[in-house]
Amino acid sequence: MKIDVILTPAEIATLPSGDLSASTAVVFDVLRATSTIITALASGAAGVHPVATIDEAWALQQKIPGAIVGGEREGVKQAGFHFGNSPREYTPEATDGKEIILTTTNGTVALRAVAGAERVLIGALLNLDALAAYLRAARPEHLLLVCAGSWNDFSLEDALAAGGLMARLPEAEATDPGTVVGLIHLRFGMEPYSCLRSSKNGRRLVNIGLGEDVAYCSRTSSSALVPELREGVILPPMKS
Amino acid sequence: MKIDVILTPAEIATLPSGDLSASTAVVFDVLRATSTIITALASGAAGVHPVATIDEAWALQQKIPGAIVGGEREGVKQAGFHFGNSPREYTPEATDGKEIILTTTNGTVALRAVAGAERVLIGALLNLDALAAYLRAARPEHLLLVCAGSWNDFSLEDALAAGGLMARLPEAEATDPGTVVGLIHLRFGMEPYSCLRSSKNGRRLVNIGLGEDVAYCSRTSSSALVPELREGVILPPMKS
Repeated sequence: MKIDVILTPAEIATLPSGDLSASTAVVFDVLRATSTIITALASGAAGVHPVATIDEAWALQQKIPGAIVGGEREGVKQAGFHFGNSPREYTPEATDGKEIILTTTNGTVALRAVAGAERVLIGALLNLDALAAYLRAARPEHLLLVCAGSWNDFSLEDALAAGGLMARLPEAEATDPGTVVGLIHLRFGMEPYSCLRSSKNGRRLVNIGLGEDVAYCSRTSSSALVPELREGVILPPMKS
Repeated sequence: MKIDVILTPAEIATLPSGDLSASTAVVFDVLRATSTIITALASGAAGVHPVATIDEAWALQQKIPGAIVGGEREGVKQAGFHFGNSPREYTPEATDGKEIILTTTNGTVALRAVAGAERVLIGALLNLDALAAYLRAARPEHLLLVCAGSWNDFSLEDALAAGGLMARLPEAEATDPGTVVGLIHLRFGMEPYSCLRSSKNGRRLVNIGLGEDVAYCSRTSSSALVPELREGVILPPMKS
């Protein structure tokens, strides 16, 4: 299995399009979009529709009556939205059976950039073991790990998750970014909360009173779910 | 001292221009452009003119009679050039007193991107101690470490050098990319040759018979020179 790693949002913008048809991509936006998506689907949501802007969210809600709208800007829930982007809000009571429209910035950009891949999977610390089991069974020829980052910046927690997934897969050819995420996993894989807590996003969330989200998102392999993007909607894995 | 780190070439392209006037930038292109520049100036070259293309090199040579032209494409010297991009070619016998026109790809792009900084310094493993001493004395308010990378890709060896420099400076506020280059330095700082030898660029150079360059460029702090870019030309530090 050949594994490439995209470390920074700026690289996502330069991804060559159209040659991912034999690739499986995994998108990591650990704090907090992909952790929230995994949690919402585990709580029974029918599907998650990632959109980039608040306008897009409202426009899509017109087409999906009954959909829940969630998301944030600067970590804070938007006026009129049902939820923010805290995974802890997406409980079974609130989301079971519902379609969810989620505004994310980097997560959505990353998902759109790799939409041409054969498979696009949602990754976080929450589902590392499940992701690894899925990939060991599916054995894609080429795996592309995408660290969504935060605005224009590299995010430590996404690289930690990418490194944790690599460590769970059969040894791949060494690449420079692969070496780097491997080192981050070696240093922080056994103390993911410390890593998230010390990251720029983690400190920001703690500062606005959302420290519990940081703790939640660090719970490595607590979920068995590997969501997949299919035609613009993120769905739970198909039952076989 | 606030320290920012640019990890990938794609980020260099998105650097906000015009707000670096209070910053000191250090550009690292360890294999091999910045290592070659340091070596050429240590050998007595009068100045190094970095240019991006072979056409630019020839055009500039018309304006600087007697200038030596050096550089490479895919690691190989160009027809008609005096030298390739091997630091070992830039001996005192060959370069003393001469102006050198050097074609580099990522190095030149990175230098141009930060040309608006108050100071632009040339960094490599070769001059880490000297760089650190310079910066501890100059105490810039803001330091920008730029890993030039290779084509579109992150390069491990540039991040190692950035991490090595950070480790030699007074403790700065933790940033996510700063944490990453710090981990690379912790892992490889005491065995830089292993790091360079295992990197993508290092393996490529070994494969084309230039393994000695890899060894040379790993000689940490063997040079006392901190070259500086001034109006498009890289010069040895001014004698005070």
